[in-house]
Amino acid sequence: MGITLYLNRKNNEIIVKEPQDVSSLTNGFYGKMDKGIIHLQPEEALYMIDIRNAKCIDETGNTYTFNDIASIFLKRKKLLARYLTFKDWRDRGLIVRPNFEAHRNYGRSTTKKYKGGDFKIDAYSLQGVFFFDDLITIIDDEASGKELYEKYWIGQFGTYKAAHRGKIAKLDIHETIYLLKHGNLSLKNTKLKEIWVEANERIKYFEDMYSVYENWRNKGYVLKTGFKFGTHFRIYFPGASPIRENDEWIHSRHVVHIFPRKSKMLISEWSRAIRVAHSVKKTFILAIPGKKLEIKINPKKPRLDFLLYHRKKGGIETPKNGQPRFFMYSLSEDEYLGGEELAEVLFEVKYYGLEALLAIADRESSITFYVVKRIELPGSDYEHYEIEWMQP
Amino acid sequence: MGITLYLNRKNNEIIVKEPQDVSSLTNGFYGKMDKGIIHLQPEEALYMIDIRNAKCIDETGNTYTFNDIASIFLKRKKLLARYLTFKDWRDRGLIVRPNFEAHRNYGRSTTKKYKGGDFKIDAYSLQGVFFFDDLITIIDDEASGKELYEKYWIGQFGTYKAAHRGKIAKLDIHETIYLLKHGNLSLKNTKLKEIWVEANERIKYFEDMYSVYENWRNKGYVLKTGFKFGTHFRIYFPGASPIRENDEWIHSRHVVHIFPRKSKMLISEWSRAIRVAHSVKKTFILAIPGKKLEIKINPKKPRLDFLLYHRKKGGIETPKNGQPRFFMYSLSEDEYLGGEELAEVLFEVKYYGLEALLAIADRESSITFYVVKRIELPGSDYEHYEIEWMQP
Repeated sequence: MGITLYLNRKNNEIIVKEPQDVSSLTNGFYGKMDKGIIHLQPEEALYMIDIRNAKCIDETGNTYTFNDIASIFLKRKKLLARYLTFKDWRDRGLIVRPNFEAHRNYGRSTTKKYKGGDFKIDAYSLQGVFFFDDLITIIDDEASGKELYEKYWIGQFGTYKAAHRGKIAKLDIHETIYLLKHGNLSLKNTKLKEIWVEANERIKYFEDMYSVYENWRNKGYVLKTGFKFGTHFRIYFPGASPIRENDEWIHSRHVVHIFPRKSKMLISEWSRAIRVAHSVKKTFILAIPGKKLEIKINPKKPRLDFLLYHRKKGGIETPKNGQPRFFMYSLSEDEYLGGEELAEVLFEVKYYGLEALLAIADRESSITFYVVKRIELPGSDYEHYEIEWMQP
Repeated sequence: MGITLYLNRKNNEIIVKEPQDVSSLTNGFYGKMDKGIIHLQPEEALYMIDIRNAKCIDETGNTYTFNDIASIFLKRKKLLARYLTFKDWRDRGLIVRPNFEAHRNYGRSTTKKYKGGDFKIDAYSLQGVFFFDDLITIIDDEASGKELYEKYWIGQFGTYKAAHRGKIAKLDIHETIYLLKHGNLSLKNTKLKEIWVEANERIKYFEDMYSVYENWRNKGYVLKTGFKFGTHFRIYFPGASPIRENDEWIHSRHVVHIFPRKSKMLISEWSRAIRVAHSVKKTFILAIPGKKLEIKINPKKPRLDFLLYHRKKGGIETPKNGQPRFFMYSLSEDEYLGGEELAEVLFEVKYYGLEALLAIADRESSITFYVVKRIELPGSDYEHYEIEWMQP
């Protein structure tokens, strides 16, 4: 026999009171016990009906189906995204608890430390022509173009992966602006101001893109286009050089994607970028440029959705023997996520000292998980995160 | 010694006239011969300077560098994207000729034929609740939900890849609308019209997405979310079933991405979607829904950029021994491509009976090629193309 749920039609509370049911749910860490009665959250009640063969009745003996119960809570935001992500975690035999139980810093968050550093370029006197339609600068002075490429990996001298082939250097739009500001580049046909205007007109959130480029470059990192890997930039650690050692091309290990605070991105597009990086075995770094806002934490109404307990040696973690590991944010495929919204959520996770887990329910109710880890990049005001696909 | 180019400052024509240079360029199929003199296109002249160590002078003996020559043609659209894609093809030892030489149907285009068919659903009487915030319908009548899933692969009964787990069926927004229109579904809390309005408000180009879904579904194809593969839908051929045979899950081989005529997509985003499909070994289908426009071909000004000769058994094709194989469209990473623009370009390629090759110059001047093949889907008014990454 399944469990019996009782719905109180006056306050829409769902409780469990049969002793054997109470004991079964207590063992599974469902609901909240109060004087021998267990009060369930809507997601918990739906799970009982969907998966645990529970029956739900009210005072007068009417029966309630999954949809009957769900309909009562229809006004709740992303009810199904929450239910489906809750269900997935539970289906794995792991414990989920409501967000409002978060009450302190759990000391669980991991920070990734990246090297700081600085970068200075020699006082060259570089001359080039800027091609507005292509957003590329060409330097046709062979010696300067070559040195710029070999010493700083700025521009592409000759041909991609065949620098000896050809005599001109091509600077992309970020390299062009960087050298105009910091590298004594002058252009025969235009000035920084005009290029800046053009780039901002042509490329959405260009200012954000460039500021991330400059932020990392100033610390000695090398940033080149991430086109082949589906992201804005690929990134090499300080000291990387395009000159092949033992005829081996250096492979980047990280890619950087910029998520402007004011932008909104479809979850499916967001996920696509992470997938490409994953398929080429690169670490995906998300950069949220711009000034961090003051974010208020309301302990009674967290932005995040569920506290997740994970595994430990020899078993699973529970509220009895451990602490939550992740704070889950439930999303669905066709939703839009804003840069600022994500920044807020990640700030909240940090406040509680948990790891952030983004759980995305696709249109087929399959769930994809991403763990988000904060990056410490000395001297940077921007927020950076490593995002990794995870199978719990 | 390199070749000598002569620039005529009056008309900005670039010619080659030294007999040994003329003979060298003739053998390489560069330029156009007229009375013993070769007239070069700007891309050809730039290539000579960049790669073939050519010197360029004018009547009075002034020397011109790469940038000097490029600056003369600075007003030409996407000059560098064109130059870099031209260069890549030439660097492979293959022949490129100017677009205006296209003069007939070359009979080279390949069409992919897909099965037609029709689809009828039994006259069920289905009831569900629609969750607006999640754009999902739940059917909690176990028998109907299960049959719908097993017989038509509509909805997800139980759990993804574990249909026995759970008792409810989830229909996504496309399945919901399809069943409201064609499958006798009724919803307890709302009607088709309201859902249609909501979906169009929430999802950009929803009408286009749904119309592609319906177009294929009506022919018996099964469409499910392509979320895991970075596209709008994955697609199974008629007859596919979610019921495992010999405990083997059926894998889709194709994904469909919708490119609305009115939308503009950043080339890098566009390419990202193809990359994910490629990394999971699926054929990428691009759908351009909506009415085909009447497109005018101006033989003197093709939209496409270069005629490409490819390889043949034992060597390369040339204008002497063969015909062009591809018509190349040159693009760059940071450019926006419109659905209608692409449709026009592909119409033009068809007109000339060539295969379409999209060549994308990234910010590092590396080129990525995609071959586009027209799909014949009987009974469909929409345009569909297979797009495949290619290494020439």
